[in-house]
Amino acid sequence: MHSFLNDYSEGAHPKVLQALTESNLRQTCGYGLDPDCQKAADLIRKLCNAPDAAVHFLVGGTQTNLVAIDALLKPYEAVIAASTGHVSRHETGAIEASGHKVCTVSAPDGKLTPELVESVLNDHDGTEHMVSPRFVYISNTTETGTVYNLKELQALRACCDTHGLLLYLDGARLGSAIAAGGPSLPELAALTDAFYIGGTKNGALFGEALVLARPQADFRWYIKRRGAMLAKGRLLGIQFQALLEDGLYFDIARHANELALRLREGVRTLGYPLMVESPSNQQFFILPKTVFSKLTAQGCEFEVEWEKADQVCIRLVTSWATPPAAIDEFLQALAAV
Amino acid sequence: MHSFLNDYSEGAHPKVLQALTESNLRQTCGYGLDPDCQKAADLIRKLCNAPDAAVHFLVGGTQTNLVAIDALLKPYEAVIAASTGHVSRHETGAIEASGHKVCTVSAPDGKLTPELVESVLNDHDGTEHMVSPRFVYISNTTETGTVYNLKELQALRACCDTHGLLLYLDGARLGSAIAAGGPSLPELAALTDAFYIGGTKNGALFGEALVLARPQADFRWYIKRRGAMLAKGRLLGIQFQALLEDGLYFDIARHANELALRLREGVRTLGYPLMVESPSNQQFFILPKTVFSKLTAQGCEFEVEWEKADQVCIRLVTSWATPPAAIDEFLQALAAV
Amino acid sequence: MHSFLNDYSEGAHPKVLQALTESNLRQTCGYGLDPDCQKAADLIRKLCNAPDAAVHFLVGGTQTNLVAIDALLKPYEAVIAASTGHVSRHETGAIEASGHKVCTVSAPDGKLTPELVESVLNDHDGTEHMVSPRFVYISNTTETGTVYNLKELQALRACCDTHGLLLYLDGARLGSAIAAGGPSLPELAALTDAFYIGGTKNGALFGEALVLARPQADFRWYIKRRGAMLAKGRLLGIQFQALLEDGLYFDIARHANELALRLREGVRTLGYPLMVESPSNQQFFILPKTVFSKLTAQGCEFEVEWEKADQVCIRLVTSWATPPAAIDEFLQALAAV
Amino acid sequence: MHSFLNDYSEGAHPKVLQALTESNLRQTCGYGLDPDCQKAADLIRKLCNAPDAAVHFLVGGTQTNLVAIDALLKPYEAVIAASTGHVSRHETGAIEASGHKVCTVSAPDGKLTPELVESVLNDHDGTEHMVSPRFVYISNTTETGTVYNLKELQALRACCDTHGLLLYLDGARLGSAIAAGGPSLPELAALTDAFYIGGTKNGALFGEALVLARPQADFRWYIKRRGAMLAKGRLLGIQFQALLEDGLYFDIARHANELALRLREGVRTLGYPLMVESPSNQQFFILPKTVFSKLTAQGCEFEVEWEKADQVCIRLVTSWATPPAAIDEFLQALAAV
Repeated sequence: MHSFLNDYSEGAHPKVLQALTESNLRQTCGYGLDPDCQKAADLIRKLCNAPDAAVHFLVGGTQTNLVAIDALLKPYEAVIAASTGHVSRHETGAIEASGHKVCTVSAPDGKLTPELVESVLNDHDGTEHMVSPRFVYISNTTETGTVYNLKELQALRACCDTHGLLLYLDGARLGSAIAAGGPSLPELAALTDAFYIGGTKNGALFGEALVLARPQADFRWYIKRRGAMLAKGRLLGIQFQALLEDGLYFDIARHANELALRLREGVRTLGYPLMVESPSNQQFFILPKTVFSKLTAQGCEFEVEWEKADQVCIRLVTSWATPPAAIDEFLQALAAV
Repeated sequence: MHSFLNDYSEGAHPKVLQALTESNLRQTCGYGLDPDCQKAADLIRKLCNAPDAAVHFLVGGTQTNLVAIDALLKPYEAVIAASTGHVSRHETGAIEASGHKVCTVSAPDGKLTPELVESVLNDHDGTEHMVSPRFVYISNTTETGTVYNLKELQALRACCDTHGLLLYLDGARLGSAIAAGGPSLPELAALTDAFYIGGTKNGALFGEALVLARPQADFRWYIKRRGAMLAKGRLLGIQFQALLEDGLYFDIARHANELALRLREGVRTLGYPLMVESPSNQQFFILPKTVFSKLTAQGCEFEVEWEKADQVCIRLVTSWATPPAAIDEFLQALAAV
Repeated sequence: MHSFLNDYSEGAHPKVLQALTESNLRQTCGYGLDPDCQKAADLIRKLCNAPDAAVHFLVGGTQTNLVAIDALLKPYEAVIAASTGHVSRHETGAIEASGHKVCTVSAPDGKLTPELVESVLNDHDGTEHMVSPRFVYISNTTETGTVYNLKELQALRACCDTHGLLLYLDGARLGSAIAAGGPSLPELAALTDAFYIGGTKNGALFGEALVLARPQADFRWYIKRRGAMLAKGRLLGIQFQALLEDGLYFDIARHANELALRLREGVRTLGYPLMVESPSNQQFFILPKTVFSKLTAQGCEFEVEWEKADQVCIRLVTSWATPPAAIDEFLQALAAV
Repeated sequence: MHSFLNDYSEGAHPKVLQALTESNLRQTCGYGLDPDCQKAADLIRKLCNAPDAAVHFLVGGTQTNLVAIDALLKPYEAVIAASTGHVSRHETGAIEASGHKVCTVSAPDGKLTPELVESVLNDHDGTEHMVSPRFVYISNTTETGTVYNLKELQALRACCDTHGLLLYLDGARLGSAIAAGGPSLPELAALTDAFYIGGTKNGALFGEALVLARPQADFRWYIKRRGAMLAKGRLLGIQFQALLEDGLYFDIARHANELALRLREGVRTLGYPLMVESPSNQQFFILPKTVFSKLTAQGCEFEVEWEKADQVCIRLVTSWATPPAAIDEFLQALAAV
């Protein structure tokens, strides 16, 4: 049976792999200073309508978050994040390992609002006895599959401007967010101080493209100092070109979302509640334990989000690689138990 | 008018200063390896009924907390603290600066309970994708003046044993806590993995005595590496001897508490509400803004804990140096406005 | 013209790419816990004759060094390295960024000896006022192309045993070292506390296989905390299987070395001195500036190791991807100028 | 017998202690924002002829060095120091613990020169693959008792200007350096980016006054984040006022130097060689082992700098507290053995 464990269960989209294969024996210099990274960066600047932005390619999401925070903040400046945020919960203290506090606030649907950001600010007195919250971390889609829309992002931008904060968007699943109606690349480039276009979970073997609204001359020092500079950096440039040069990135995100919504509607029709109304490629369903056990006994694979006495909340993730038949297969299995 | 801003507004108790003066020209070796530190450590082991404990003297509270956490935890292990905890709020990210995450939980009266500790544990899945919460940080008295009693401390110890956690008690205001009926030195030594006896806020010029239930052979490396090893370490040993050899430490804490309770009862009699029922040397009163303004206009000094539209919560702190007359003076001023 | 800039100028050996392609659509779990990484780790344990060793796959060399040092040392323990060592010179302070000092010692041929290690130890007094040197970092091949032989490695092991030190070998170019007669995998596993088999510079797209003589239960926490855990970890397992299952890794290293030696002999015949007698895939030649200028004008590509008034030392690197004809081409170009 | 172990073997100069005693019951606010610190800072600015300088008071030397480096450098910027420098050798990696590399260079007499600084720069290529050496650390007096003169300091300043480096002077023993003819306070303020006036080793109980040529608005955040902000900060201000308001600091340094020179001449007359020609309060003598053993058997106390087969190099330190008779006593003991 198809596994819905993750959107990184397979390798790369065939077109990406083909690009890697075709370029394989070409010689270039290393560390991301090669023509392929240049072209990919130019393409991203064009798609973002941000000719002055800087683009850096990194290998993974946690790495990108920690390098960006390290480079953009002073040591005593802190991150504001939802308590469900990836930097808060799922990075083994990588941000703290670089010396920065992450100030968390509970956000029921995983989304920060100006009010939540200000509640963190109000808890700090501006003196040298406390950290200075400076960096608003959001992700689109969020860790629970919800999606910030343009208006919400604009409101956060305004809040950041009012309080002198940086706005950063973790785009590990940015394709899915955009395909679900979230802010576009030019909107993201205009409204954030930095964001990244996630490749790992949307068609690449690996790779994240970090876009900085304002280039920082020494940014590459921060990359290298964290062991985050890929020797064959061109692998990142080649993949992002393949994903972005003719819209593949968005096509496959749309595919993943469509299957996710079919899954959602199918489960809803069968009468099981959703944990959250997600328009994106992560879906969370609440099942009775007996149903859950029968499904897993049949070999259905997904993650468990939480478990209570009688209920289990499961997460199913779709991707570019999910075959439509897998949706039917899962829904039939669920209907049968 | 007397200032109630803090319990570190003056120098040292005269007896402490006298001990420093008398020993001033005696030569000793440096860095806390001198006979005075040895004697003070022996005395503390005796008072704690803990002959095997290690005692290290440090200069300040934040320094003591950061060195202890640095030395007792592995890099990926995290601290559990109330969101009001000093390590969470008032140390400018000093703990994160040493690479450790502080996992906070809201505790209405500033006190952790086994349930609160377990709520943090339950939020972590035990995998390498999350930090490992390992170190329970509490303070006695707490940051809001409340006091853990023996039973509460025993319950936390049992919780820590169940889950393999370390229990640490920040004793910046330990004198006041013990004088208010909190666990005694032998009980603290028996129930915690480490705690410190605060000198700065109870009669010393400066200094905290950290007691480790189990000596750690390389602990002094952690002290020095953080710039926390005092050259003339004996100053710490001399002060703690003066404070502890005949009970001065507890006498002056009792004095501070008694004046604080007179203050509390006086304010209550005048009809103003307390923020919290504090039995210790920090008292928090909620005043109408008009009253607050008149008081400050008269030169009354205290800290503002929070401020709302119509009300201000003020903090008054008493100490070994507070003259009884200052209580009357303040209550008269308050009665008059 | 062929570029001799580096051994990471191309993609992957075709067989590696083929393995990635063939496995591309297979679903596995993430983060290196998949069957492919298991198989590759088992294979490495077998090739190392080290059934109890732990194997972890990481993306790059600096990353591997910093994670290993972070995990194996206490914060105040330091690294001993040649001043030419990669951790000393070419990692932008990545080791210091994790809090560890690197104690350097000048080693004319890039190789540490027991005497050099002891000279560092002798400079430390064993007290808490100095770091504790604990971790001997060597690389094979070294940064100047020289190679430790078995006897030299045994001598370092004995020295480490005498002084309670850990011995670590950076194998970024381990294939070349082994092909040049350096210690074999079983010898490395027996003599070091940890070493890594470099993939990036010997046929992989990226990837290093770290072998720990003694498994460390929490090692994966250190990986994740540094953002060094690849989501699609299987990419590493698949590549190392392809490289190691039938000796490809050693075959291509031999190829690279053979071409390097042809280069060396050719240059020597033309009368130009070597900076160092290197038996491996990095060769360093000293050219008059006029010769150097003519070569670069013709499009020859290589790195400049150093530059003096009249002379330039250049580095040429061969790899699995170097065509034999490129050697002739370079030698002819050199002969012609 | 008098101990020559250190210049921090006693408490404080009586006048300093008297100032602490007289001010003991006065109430002030905490953390160095009090009138005493203000007055001391103003006095230092005046003595330095540097009305725009910022002055921060810290407790100890290692702490001052680590906070200054932390605050003045970006994470990837490195320190240049003599291999004998305190930050290189005797701070247990405190600088690396804040993430900065210390690039060391051998300096026979403990003093950096423009040539030595440039030799470190030349070893770095300015790319993101290496740290950026940015901060020249010197100490006056040096760790071996030698003293930079004005001309040498000017030459270093010019070198720093040429290369865009910061110049920092560790003044743990600044009194002795100035009394020995080293650059004066106004010269130091004009020629360095930061330096500190050491109190611990010249009459204070503890305390160092850091002078920053250019105030840094967030410097206090760096202090607090390292646990280096003294609650009763006024203790520092009071001590520096006592030391500096009427020249006591310089008088007692002169006293220490005079006794050190008498010691030096006496030992020289007895025919024992000096390790170094020191004009300051640290003197290093090379004794035959038999002589050394007899001296220590008599209870003479000093540090051992190094030990060889037949010889021992000992360090004797004088201070404000050294009685002239102690010099005669030591010389007689040495003459007698």
